[in-house]
Amino acid sequence: MAERTSEGAEPPIRDGRTPVGSGPVAEALCVGDELLSGDTVNKNAAFLGVRARSLGVPLVRVVTVRDRVEEIVEAARAAADRCDVLLVSGGLGPTTDDLTTEALAAAARVPLVRDDAALARLAEKFRRFARSMPVANHKQADFPQGADILANPIGSAEGFAVALGRATAFSMPGVPRELERMMIEQVEPRVRARFGLAAVRRRVYRVLGIGESALAEKIEPLVLSRRAHSPGLAALFLHYRAAMPEVLVVLEATPDRDGHAASDDELAAFDGPFAEALAPGLYGIGEADLATRTIDALRRAGLRIAFAESCTGGLAAATIAAVPGASDVLDGGVVAYDNRIKHAVLGVPRDVLEQHGAVSEPVARALAEGVRRVLGSDLGVGITGIAGPGGGSPEKPVGTVHIAVADAEITRHLRLQLRGDRGTVQRAAALWSLKLAWDRLGARGLAGVVALEPIPRE
Amino acid sequence: MAERTSEGAEPPIRDGRTPVGSGPVAEALCVGDELLSGDTVNKNAAFLGVRARSLGVPLVRVVTVRDRVEEIVEAARAAADRCDVLLVSGGLGPTTDDLTTEALAAAARVPLVRDDAALARLAEKFRRFARSMPVANHKQADFPQGADILANPIGSAEGFAVALGRATAFSMPGVPRELERMMIEQVEPRVRARFGLAAVRRRVYRVLGIGESALAEKIEPLVLSRRAHSPGLAALFLHYRAAMPEVLVVLEATPDRDGHAASDDELAAFDGPFAEALAPGLYGIGEADLATRTIDALRRAGLRIAFAESCTGGLAAATIAAVPGASDVLDGGVVAYDNRIKHAVLGVPRDVLEQHGAVSEPVARALAEGVRRVLGSDLGVGITGIAGPGGGSPEKPVGTVHIAVADAEITRHLRLQLRGDRGTVQRAAALWSLKLAWDRLGARGLAGVVALEPIPRE
Repeated sequence: MAERTSEGAEPPIRDGRTPVGSGPVAEALCVGDELLSGDTVNKNAAFLGVRARSLGVPLVRVVTVRDRVEEIVEAARAAADRCDVLLVSGGLGPTTDDLTTEALAAAARVPLVRDDAALARLAEKFRRFARSMPVANHKQADFPQGADILANPIGSAEGFAVALGRATAFSMPGVPRELERMMIEQVEPRVRARFGLAAVRRRVYRVLGIGESALAEKIEPLVLSRRAHSPGLAALFLHYRAAMPEVLVVLEATPDRDGHAASDDELAAFDGPFAEALAPGLYGIGEADLATRTIDALRRAGLRIAFAESCTGGLAAATIAAVPGASDVLDGGVVAYDNRIKHAVLGVPRDVLEQHGAVSEPVARALAEGVRRVLGSDLGVGITGIAGPGGGSPEKPVGTVHIAVADAEITRHLRLQLRGDRGTVQRAAALWSLKLAWDRLGARGLAGVVALEPIPRE
Repeated sequence: MAERTSEGAEPPIRDGRTPVGSGPVAEALCVGDELLSGDTVNKNAAFLGVRARSLGVPLVRVVTVRDRVEEIVEAARAAADRCDVLLVSGGLGPTTDDLTTEALAAAARVPLVRDDAALARLAEKFRRFARSMPVANHKQADFPQGADILANPIGSAEGFAVALGRATAFSMPGVPRELERMMIEQVEPRVRARFGLAAVRRRVYRVLGIGESALAEKIEPLVLSRRAHSPGLAALFLHYRAAMPEVLVVLEATPDRDGHAASDDELAAFDGPFAEALAPGLYGIGEADLATRTIDALRRAGLRIAFAESCTGGLAAATIAAVPGASDVLDGGVVAYDNRIKHAVLGVPRDVLEQHGAVSEPVARALAEGVRRVLGSDLGVGITGIAGPGGGSPEKPVGTVHIAVADAEITRHLRLQLRGDRGTVQRAAALWSLKLAWDRLGARGLAGVVALEPIPRE
């Protein structure tokens, strides 16, 4: 499933590809039978890929092996001959099939050594939870001789770094939140120090409702036309992260072979041209997502919002409620799945329901206005549609969705024709309803396409 | 992140592990820069792991490589020396960095040959969508000489099977729904025919609120004590698929070295003992999930349900609405995020809110009873809690959730202390509210732990 690249005299600009530079590269070795039985989806690999890329040490291969010493040893040695940074996940627990430490010591041809300070830290962690430490856990204080121990403040398994072939191997626990924290806090500073890397600067443009190839046609000429302006821009890459109907465009200041990379100002200079080319799909710049940005805009304006949902069944309100601090702006909503509820609770007139059908512009408007009135909110959002797989007709096929946003002045409406299965249509409809609310805030001067970092989540 | 296994004189019974039998094994080779940049999570690998396991050809390694011919060739040859079935995903598209076909031909040391019938089928697919076929797509009709073409009725990329080393390599597109269909319809029958395999029988027990190790203590002795009864039971394995608070226990009739496997009746004989050991956590046997089973039970009883949600913000209702046919039983709900809505719309008395706080048993009961009354439903569900990260106190720490289910006779209540981040607490609270509704239906004789296949989704 490859992305398209531009080929020709110009260096490529769309880049799922890792750059062909001469810099250090990384591989990942994921250990665990549960990854191979399919019981667990390997999200660690994607996380490590994103982090390695922004670190400037692109991930060029991922190998997943079973909980078997000989297979881990063989895969680790082979990887250590090919890469500079080997990111190992899993197999650091206390049980008999947690074998990664033993295997990496064997691969590095050094003995395992018990670390008394690590054992004391482990005992202290158990004490803190008022539990006695099982003997099985003692082996979590064993490390390959000469290893550099990596702290794990949120779990029992400490990690370690050990020299292996031409690479440094970094062994981390498989539990995602422990791995993520250890990668960011322990591994990345060591890799950056060792290879003298500066973090790769990037700028994220967030777009709703424009497909990947249409996006490319709009913005790639803008990037190409600026390439000649600065040596740093020559190695500027674009990549696209799609979760339809949303696409993130990532402009990445990869260094060229001479180490030149685009500056923050050079990246930010694309904001204006991109905003113009991508209107009205572009809703934001930066890491903050649509729900976070919508909440932020409502909070600044002192406004509160409510949702009336039919086909999404509560998903739009839940998308807002998923963000910490949602209570500052979210009154709540009514899931008016049955038509009786649309009429009885939200006052959608029976004759409108009968004349236009539940999936129609007048009903979407009446839902938005009704929930705003009934809940006493500043903004009301209405969603009605056919999520499928059944219920479609030639006039209103599956994927037909009407959304509306009402405030004290006006009610805006949008008809969508969405594609995909039931869950995809529901998620897209919920996201589009936030976009319509965000657009209305924008029209009132209360929201804008500015760089915004996310409000930290737990 | 390894699972625990029992070790000792007995053969192991908990098995994230692939059996140590002498049967054929599979590897997966996933091709695509987007998997390594982290832009895409590799869900295909988990899917292939599940399918290969149930096919009786366990997946023992997954290698992910870039869109580079030499890397694909090297990885394919190495894998083909180790395994019998090589499952290849990705790189079958029309673009210049779709290189898998070319690479597998090189690995097998055969030329690429254009297949006229395949080209005609491709042209026909474009005609059907009223598009002219770009020249770039012609290469999708090229296959390694002697390859067996695998149909793709829902995409342009046909797959192929080709002999490679000791293995047969099956090349499939990377788009998940295309890969999944091709694996099931094209690859599995060929693998089954080639190795004379019978499908591995399995039985799934669905449990809420019992952790993996507590589950193991309850059921592993039951399985061990029956091992002597039949040669087929000797190779019976258990594995656990956890998505807390839910755990699926999979009892798998893996064949032993002599080909004996447990029969369907022998598997079903565990239903009674498991139901007793796992009560009240066990809610079902079979593939149908909690939302599907709850809807099924409500539909059979002719009952309708409504939700009053605070901390889950609509997620419980949306979990029901995610299942096709939900409209048969779902009236809707009220997202009473703000306390004002709890009082004004659902009639929760102000003094109850003030005296007990919004997160309390009386408020959960009043929410359930209020939404039942206001929406005129048979069952009302109430959820109120502290999802975090803020809002906790010593008496009511983050993760405190009160849920209640009301029908015409009685209101049942449950207090939960959930762990995890905001999203985890919200998802668990929504699931527990369905479990409480399901338990109430069970107490009325309207739901039971029976084997139920899922209602097919789109």
